[in-house]
Amino acid sequence: MKSEAWLGALDDRLAAQLKFLLAADRLKEVYRACKVTSGARFENSAEHSWHLTLFALVLKEYAVTPVDIARVVQMLVLHDLIEYECGDTPIFAAEAVDQAAREQAAADVVFGLLPADQSKELRTIWEEFEAAQTADAKFAKALDRLQPILQNHAVGGGSWIAYDVDIERERALTNKIEKGSPTLWAAANAVFEDAVKCGWMKKAP
Amino acid sequence: MKSEAWLGALDDRLAAQLKFLLAADRLKEVYRACKVTSGARFENSAEHSWHLTLFALVLKEYAVTPVDIARVVQMLVLHDLIEYECGDTPIFAAEAVDQAAREQAAADVVFGLLPADQSKELRTIWEEFEAAQTADAKFAKALDRLQPILQNHAVGGGSWIAYDVDIERERALTNKIEKGSPTLWAAANAVFEDAVKCGWMKKAP
Repeated sequence: MKSEAWLGALDDRLAAQLKFLLAADRLKEVYRACKVTSGARFENSAEHSWHLTLFALVLKEYAVTPVDIARVVQMLVLHDLIEYECGDTPIFAAEAVDQAAREQAAADVVFGLLPADQSKELRTIWEEFEAAQTADAKFAKALDRLQPILQNHAVGGGSWIAYDVDIERERALTNKIEKGSPTLWAAANAVFEDAVKCGWMKKAP
Repeated sequence: MKSEAWLGALDDRLAAQLKFLLAADRLKEVYRACKVTSGARFENSAEHSWHLTLFALVLKEYAVTPVDIARVVQMLVLHDLIEYECGDTPIFAAEAVDQAAREQAAADVVFGLLPADQSKELRTIWEEFEAAQTADAKFAKALDRLQPILQNHAVGGGSWIAYDVDIERERALTNKIEKGSPTLWAAANAVFEDAVKCGWMKKAP
């Protein structure tokens, strides 16, 4: 059923770029531990990435240090892309010892589809996000932690219940939000306290 | 199961912004006429929007007029948002006489959730996209037309077969691509010709 004949009609650079974009489509079938707010199904990493770009546009005023919103949005577009090669690791799962190596290998495959200049450009942005050291990356990370909190609350517990999470563990796993935005960290804590009250998150370990 | 008690702990502005972002989640359950490239299911408008932002980052060099890529990406993040209120209208469907009015009414509801300044800011960007007059909007529209072409081809016909489309009609419906990027329009035509050869699109009306 597949036909790549048409790619032969294009120059090599454009053909490589379109192959990259078609491969990226697979991110739509990488499912996360978190559900969409209707509770109907698990969220995939592509729609999650879109949602985060909207978070960035709307919440940029709360970044603790002024951010370059265009760069934050680019990071969020790219931040989970390698998952179509190596899958999503839920925040509550124990980190595999070889996770960093697996992610680098996936990045070689994914970004390797692009022409060299563009491969380097986009991988550099992704690595900046991963390192979480710059103001832009810290704010992007904060949003990536905040969004599933709101969704877990909206569905009445979600992965907090599935993974038997208590408020201390949840705070420890999401306190990167504070580094990007103390205001949003306060909001996250209001959510946690309500979730404990509602019985969706344990009060103590 | 719903609890909005925690929103009361926040100031009104942030509470409105988070309500807007939670409502936007519904875009993940607006399904389009086009399938993801595995063919497993129909694509939703949230993941489609993410995919287009990636198209913009990778294909920006092909814009016929230099574009402000940050603005193009913002347009693409927002371009389908109102669909969670008024649904997606497939390109092959006859346009309802009241479509423009329905979309404006949906925009009132969707952007109306935001604080007034931000509501105006984001709605202005969306309306620029809809009008398709500026260089940024023309390029964003071109990408919005190009992506389903690649996906229909990848699944062996997709909505071309479902809607019994011929190459002339398809060209007429997607020729906005040329206004944003003659290079990408040539690529789209290479796809169409291959689709006709493969029997996935009719040669004549």
